[in-house]
Amino acid sequence: MHPLLEKKGFILDIDGVIGRGETPIPEGVEAVKKLREFGKKLVFVSNNSTRSRTIMIDRFQRFGLDVHEDEMLLATFATARYLKREAGKAKIFTTGEKGLIEELELAGHEIVDYRDAEYLVVGSNRGINFEIMTKALRCCLAGTRYIATNPDRIFPAEDGPIPGTGMIIGSLYWMTGRMPDVVIGKPSKVIMEEALDILGLKADEVVVVGDQIDIDVKAGKAIGATTLLVLSGVTTKENLEQMIERHGEKPDYVLDHLGKLFD
Amino acid sequence: MHPLLEKKGFILDIDGVIGRGETPIPEGVEAVKKLREFGKKLVFVSNNSTRSRTIMIDRFQRFGLDVHEDEMLLATFATARYLKREAGKAKIFTTGEKGLIEELELAGHEIVDYRDAEYLVVGSNRGINFEIMTKALRCCLAGTRYIATNPDRIFPAEDGPIPGTGMIIGSLYWMTGRMPDVVIGKPSKVIMEEALDILGLKADEVVVVGDQIDIDVKAGKAIGATTLLVLSGVTTKENLEQMIERHGEKPDYVLDHLGKLFD
Repeated sequence: MHPLLEKKGFILDIDGVIGRGETPIPEGVEAVKKLREFGKKLVFVSNNSTRSRTIMIDRFQRFGLDVHEDEMLLATFATARYLKREAGKAKIFTTGEKGLIEELELAGHEIVDYRDAEYLVVGSNRGINFEIMTKALRCCLAGTRYIATNPDRIFPAEDGPIPGTGMIIGSLYWMTGRMPDVVIGKPSKVIMEEALDILGLKADEVVVVGDQIDIDVKAGKAIGATTLLVLSGVTTKENLEQMIERHGEKPDYVLDHLGKLFD
Repeated sequence: MHPLLEKKGFILDIDGVIGRGETPIPEGVEAVKKLREFGKKLVFVSNNSTRSRTIMIDRFQRFGLDVHEDEMLLATFATARYLKREAGKAKIFTTGEKGLIEELELAGHEIVDYRDAEYLVVGSNRGINFEIMTKALRCCLAGTRYIATNPDRIFPAEDGPIPGTGMIIGSLYWMTGRMPDVVIGKPSKVIMEEALDILGLKADEVVVVGDQIDIDVKAGKAIGATTLLVLSGVTTKENLEQMIERHGEKPDYVLDHLGKLFD
């Protein structure tokens, strides 16, 4: 039996581990089912800042996986959850779109005009415009506490690269010199701490699994967890050494795909 | 007679010298008339990247000043003019709005899809959206030659600060690591060189006039011209020493307003 199967919980990246966009990775999907059979506690973590959990749960269903809401930790929900712990109910101006607003409101927060905001929450928005940017700019200048859902600069969409949340972060930084006070998504440890809280486990009881050294492995190491890199996504057998050198982090374990846990 | 009146030409900032937005500064307006009587060659320079010259000429007319198209050097027109000298007729994808597109087309350039662009021209756009940002991002990633109309980060609008062209520059820098290959507007010397070319004068024959040390005085010094700071705009008697210290530049001359040239 693989030594990692001694751990009680798994914090699993989605893209490049379980699926690639809308397409499942069969070995990843099967491995999740087996982890369940072994009685492992699971939480799926993604930096997605535009979708609510329900949309992602539907996608998993199409992969043939039943996932409970409590196992699904997107940056949207993680942000809402973090703010609940920090502020109770927060008055928020957000640059984000429907999926983020849904999660913030579901957690009891209030979306308000930028002038009344205690928090600026920056998340990606495919409907971004000059007015939203102006309001976010003014929040920054006013010193409003500033939370970013995730730090991703570019997102690889089906038809080519598109801007990530970093588009807005970089813009505000350039205009005001301000960076987010807190970043929620990987490689930040904030989303990892939320994951541990959901699992009810300590860092040394879990494995953090992902396909990117600078994002998943770095996030796992940030909380002191054991890290597993799978080569079914961005990192491959060919670029593994180069990636380790470039990012200066080495995963504790490397497997071709998640299914190899059970070989 | 003031020693600056021995110079043949004046490169004049508009905002804070001749007017403040839609409101004229009477001493500035009168001084321009007197400079004309003295036979001085004039060019008005502004970092505005959303307006064509005709709109600004209309504003001057309301101030009681007749200005010829050739005397009006906005960042929009300066960009079009620079590209004409560098490339003849250029194929351009631009983030900018109507005023910029008008000037680019008037100079013989062609606005094309981002995939066919030889140039990315970044200018401010109150209609900015995700699609425009995606296209600009892809131009940056493809290595397309990248020109910015002006570097201004924040613009002081009537109802408060709004994003300047720097909003887009900062965003692209954060996402791709690329800065513009050429910046046209002040404090860049590029717009100053265009101004000298229009005047048909050398740098030592002109005075560069403005209300901001880090923008106007810096631009003037970049071409080695004599600089005059007027205290009718951003810089005041009270903050003058602080501004000189902060920006590490000292204007050659300081006057309360442009009219003081004739006292």
